[in-house]
Amino acid sequence: MKIARISQANGASYAEIDGDVAHLLDGDPFAGPTKRSGARVALEDAVLRVPCRPSKIVCIGRNYSAHAKELGNDVPSAPLIFLKPPSALLDPGGTIVRPRSSQRVEHEAELAVVIGKRGKHVREEDAFAHVFGYAALCDVTARDLQKADVQFTRAKSFDTFCPIGPWIETELDPRDVGVRARVNDVVKQDGRTRDMVFPVAHLVAYVSAVMTLEPGDVIATGTPEGVGPLIAGDVVEVEIDGVGVLRCPVADESRD
Amino acid sequence: MKIARISQANGASYAEIDGDVAHLLDGDPFAGPTKRSGARVALEDAVLRVPCRPSKIVCIGRNYSAHAKELGNDVPSAPLIFLKPPSALLDPGGTIVRPRSSQRVEHEAELAVVIGKRGKHVREEDAFAHVFGYAALCDVTARDLQKADVQFTRAKSFDTFCPIGPWIETELDPRDVGVRARVNDVVKQDGRTRDMVFPVAHLVAYVSAVMTLEPGDVIATGTPEGVGPLIAGDVVEVEIDGVGVLRCPVADESRD
Repeated sequence: MKIARISQANGASYAEIDGDVAHLLDGDPFAGPTKRSGARVALEDAVLRVPCRPSKIVCIGRNYSAHAKELGNDVPSAPLIFLKPPSALLDPGGTIVRPRSSQRVEHEAELAVVIGKRGKHVREEDAFAHVFGYAALCDVTARDLQKADVQFTRAKSFDTFCPIGPWIETELDPRDVGVRARVNDVVKQDGRTRDMVFPVAHLVAYVSAVMTLEPGDVIATGTPEGVGPLIAGDVVEVEIDGVGVLRCPVADESRD
Repeated sequence: MKIARISQANGASYAEIDGDVAHLLDGDPFAGPTKRSGARVALEDAVLRVPCRPSKIVCIGRNYSAHAKELGNDVPSAPLIFLKPPSALLDPGGTIVRPRSSQRVEHEAELAVVIGKRGKHVREEDAFAHVFGYAALCDVTARDLQKADVQFTRAKSFDTFCPIGPWIETELDPRDVGVRARVNDVVKQDGRTRDMVFPVAHLVAYVSAVMTLEPGDVIATGTPEGVGPLIAGDVVEVEIDGVGVLRCPVADESRD
């Protein structure tokens, strides 16, 4: 099942996507059972929003060996955790803004795990019971600032640096799916989740041993090799097989 | 004025502290004007909560030279930013839990800046117009994990690692106040905010050039020298002159 959030006159509503139609849902699927309200919108007319409302966005660095190596880093012996703030969230189709302070903004295509059930010290064998579903995410990164700062936070936390979407697929098996980035229709990243150093279930267990995971929280599972620059006028697409395509244009921040 | 959040039968309510009395407020002072509801609680009977509801907690590392040096680090040339997740928040009086995975948990006493007004690219001269007030914060840190990981996130993000309180003082001048930590009544840290490498107004401007600040968001402004370990049975107090004392006991995580 594909769960989206779509703009409505008075805010946003969750919806179930079925083919070309978005069926609006009564209530919040992260809070309890929902059903179709009866209202429907043609998918082509729907304005999609970030499909969940994370209290935190936990990212995993260097989780594909070939990507760790392309940036000259060792493969970590345990998951490398960092956070992006909710202020960095960007709706599908929204514009990624290259900040004035960076000369090098890059795409990182990632599978996003969306949490459905609260958990602390989740066991690896129970991990999938805590997962609501999966989405595409671009971990936009100011590479020059990341290198200068050592700490990843500033480089990963600019407004618009965390597009997620286009919706959440609740029935994906995440163990071996394609993760792709295209820039202006040219494939730049083309990996498979089976090449993760630490797979999804391990990440849920590891992160939840540190911080309580809440419904709607997101774990971004790292990016395969092939990261590269984005410039104003580009369009970046992150595609997760079995989920869909998250598409965002890129612009420079105004100098005003 | 001192603004607290206190437990009520159906959740929590903002309150204005006046001497020994907490006057409940109608509404949310971060959303608009509020007034006393007429209900009041003796302060000694009030159960205090984290006094704001941050969408993000932005921390500044190495913002006092003597502390940077005590850990063998250089003083940074720009503010060093990291994030703590909202799941790390701990109410005043709550128990700091030392996780099983760390052998060395330390206190870091800090002045917390609580944002009152949304802002992006706030100018330094406008910074105080975006501040709601100030509180005490303990940036609890698993020092062994911080050193092992290089990235600060895991070491700083465990549940209970971000007590904030006891309330927010809205009328403090933060430029030269005492920041103190006591462990079991022994003074361990005793600094002054005038020794910050980057003062409050600069931090608000710098952070807001990266991420939009929202009402209720917190900037933890770094810790003076004297950080040290906490063990089960300790009681740590963070005192900010002109604000108050945030007091938390310490326990070990259960081994179950």
